[in-house]
Amino acid sequence: VIVLPKNLLYAQSGGVTPVINASAYGAIRAALTLPQIKEVYAAKNGIQGVLDEELYHLNAENPNEIEKIPYTPGGIFGSCRVKISSREGDPDWEKLERIFEVFRAHDIGYFLYNGGNDSMETAHAISAYAKENGLDLRVIGIPKTVDNDLLYTDYCPGYGSAAKFTATAILEATKDLKSMSASSTKVFILESMGRHAGWLAASSALSRVNGEAGPSVILLPEIPFSEEAFLTRVEEEIRTKGFCSVVASEALKDDNGDFISTAGYTDSFGNVQLGKICFTLEKIVREKLNVKVHTGLPDYLQRSSRHIASLADWQDAIEAGARSVFWMVHDRLSDMMTVIIRDMSTPYIRHFDFVPLSKIAGKTRTLPAEYIDAEALNVTEGFMEYALPLIKGEAPDNYHLGIPVYANLKYVMEKKRIH
Amino acid sequence: VIVLPKNLLYAQSGGVTPVINASAYGAIRAALTLPQIKEVYAAKNGIQGVLDEELYHLNAENPNEIEKIPYTPGGIFGSCRVKISSREGDPDWEKLERIFEVFRAHDIGYFLYNGGNDSMETAHAISAYAKENGLDLRVIGIPKTVDNDLLYTDYCPGYGSAAKFTATAILEATKDLKSMSASSTKVFILESMGRHAGWLAASSALSRVNGEAGPSVILLPEIPFSEEAFLTRVEEEIRTKGFCSVVASEALKDDNGDFISTAGYTDSFGNVQLGKICFTLEKIVREKLNVKVHTGLPDYLQRSSRHIASLADWQDAIEAGARSVFWMVHDRLSDMMTVIIRDMSTPYIRHFDFVPLSKIAGKTRTLPAEYIDAEALNVTEGFMEYALPLIKGEAPDNYHLGIPVYANLKYVMEKKRIH
Repeated sequence: VIVLPKNLLYAQSGGVTPVINASAYGAIRAALTLPQIKEVYAAKNGIQGVLDEELYHLNAENPNEIEKIPYTPGGIFGSCRVKISSREGDPDWEKLERIFEVFRAHDIGYFLYNGGNDSMETAHAISAYAKENGLDLRVIGIPKTVDNDLLYTDYCPGYGSAAKFTATAILEATKDLKSMSASSTKVFILESMGRHAGWLAASSALSRVNGEAGPSVILLPEIPFSEEAFLTRVEEEIRTKGFCSVVASEALKDDNGDFISTAGYTDSFGNVQLGKICFTLEKIVREKLNVKVHTGLPDYLQRSSRHIASLADWQDAIEAGARSVFWMVHDRLSDMMTVIIRDMSTPYIRHFDFVPLSKIAGKTRTLPAEYIDAEALNVTEGFMEYALPLIKGEAPDNYHLGIPVYANLKYVMEKKRIH
Repeated sequence: VIVLPKNLLYAQSGGVTPVINASAYGAIRAALTLPQIKEVYAAKNGIQGVLDEELYHLNAENPNEIEKIPYTPGGIFGSCRVKISSREGDPDWEKLERIFEVFRAHDIGYFLYNGGNDSMETAHAISAYAKENGLDLRVIGIPKTVDNDLLYTDYCPGYGSAAKFTATAILEATKDLKSMSASSTKVFILESMGRHAGWLAASSALSRVNGEAGPSVILLPEIPFSEEAFLTRVEEEIRTKGFCSVVASEALKDDNGDFISTAGYTDSFGNVQLGKICFTLEKIVREKLNVKVHTGLPDYLQRSSRHIASLADWQDAIEAGARSVFWMVHDRLSDMMTVIIRDMSTPYIRHFDFVPLSKIAGKTRTLPAEYIDAEALNVTEGFMEYALPLIKGEAPDNYHLGIPVYANLKYVMEKKRIH
């Protein structure tokens, strides 16, 4: 079979991670090297850039700046919160027709979508459309999410780095809290991202691995929040140790499945407070235990913390990007997401594989029961064994004048061909 | 003059910094080396440990662990929020009598207090009491505060590292914001510590030094907050760039000098919200501009971020500790605080000196007018020239299994001698 060279398009989707650009680098660098690929493009702002026919031409970039892409946080080509459904009866087929009009106009034969479970649904929709219409397009999804909630992969690139940030942040903050607790603040509460899965909040427990105090309480969305159990534990910690450090998932729910942070807590204008569970908890602790509380909400800092990225995560993110290109070009695969399979935890040995996008799309992997010590409001040793390899090593940094240096791309926009 | 060897006592006070333990290390290591000093102690929880006669005996520590002290965040001996006044008529003389009872019992001839302006008042009170009673005690203050608000010193150790954290955090978060802004969040607001001085919020501007986007708006406590000017600027940034990154000082005030975050904003229980200016601003932006806003409140993370400490700051913190010992032992000085004097900004050349504690105690240095571009809601080039040397270089780290390793002290408590 003679395969004609085609162009490759890479795009980023959903919330960013500290290493999504490492995957971008792996994919782009491999694509620029392989003779089966002619031109390499990246869509501006994910699938939105395809719909708008806004494609950056990466062959025009300075190779030195391409080498800086894996040092850069955020989504270097822009991301989006646009979803295209693959379900029958959904009205997204017009968008798909438009996407393929753009693909044809720019001779795209390879499409890589770097995102989470919503993005994999978009990738699957594109793949399904191509199949149904007999079009020559390979589609591979590159996993990415700090939430770590994709099925079938040992972990999602981005999680290791956000976990390393979270564990280090609570380690440092707990040292601070301990110093002050004799005459001042007794409780510190850190709010963690992670949506409906407790992976990221759980990672805070890794702070204890070298024998230091980490969070005494971890509140996970998998366990209905009990104010009584929470206060009992915090009070006990203060009584025995003098302080209590808490990590809380942003999406804590009560017994009825309602979010805690919207359960009756409104601001003075009557608006329901969404998220910001940390302040609901701060209020509870301050009022019920009458102690001084400090609260941290890192928000974007947690998923953009390239300066403390995990080396293991960073390297896997690069490889996930490159392997996704290999699957398409060498193995002629399509409609798959690249996954990481764990062979052994200690030492951490893993290999890359692929699973059909349809098995990933729209599904959420929450923290399994064996990783949760519900009574202790904490995680188990099983979780520690799972997560420790993912934060190992420190990804290289690139500082100038004390501040990180990032890729300075030209962002050469490819000429529009559709009028 | 024959000077008999005496014991040295070191103590930490007030909010911690990422490098307060670097100063502890400098002081302790110098004291352990000099023959004029017999035993070296650290008070548990600052001056409170003196009042309680709780002194750690540092000669008993493993030298390998002492070498890890400057790698450790928080206050390694514990800090406190206890203040002893030096003003006439204040009832703290009883406490001072108690302090000297403990000093005599343990043959303390040298006392180092590592803190901010409140702590320097305590140190001055102790020094004044000694002088008034003809007691042989040398007292030196070692500056420390992320707020950078002490007079007479070029900067306060701790500020450089918190500034480096702040600039890196807003740099990374702004990259995140930019990636998402086309279809989602348009504004990110980061709340900064710094109390009544804008030094730390201002440091966020350093994020721009390598040509990247940093905060478009910096709200300083030195400038009365104008909602109109703020919203006009944010709207203009969104219109021209598509997004707007904001850094806000925790203690913003209105034209009348009232705190913004307590100006009419209460929670559903009717409690006035103190601090958390970021949520007041988020609410204003969301309601008036109708855009999606993300908000970060690093809190303790900002002043405990040892993992991204500035090398310049870390080295100066060590030297400030050691020099403070030299002033007492070699120069027989007392009632002074060690300060840093800038000889030149580029290259940064500085030397150490000392000023009377009475000139520091209880006073606040705010951001000078020439560092503030009030119209642009930002800082001037003069500020950039001032602050850049302070974040230069990356302090060494010590990781094991992906997590920082800290000093593991024995904390051998000296036997109490007062019954």
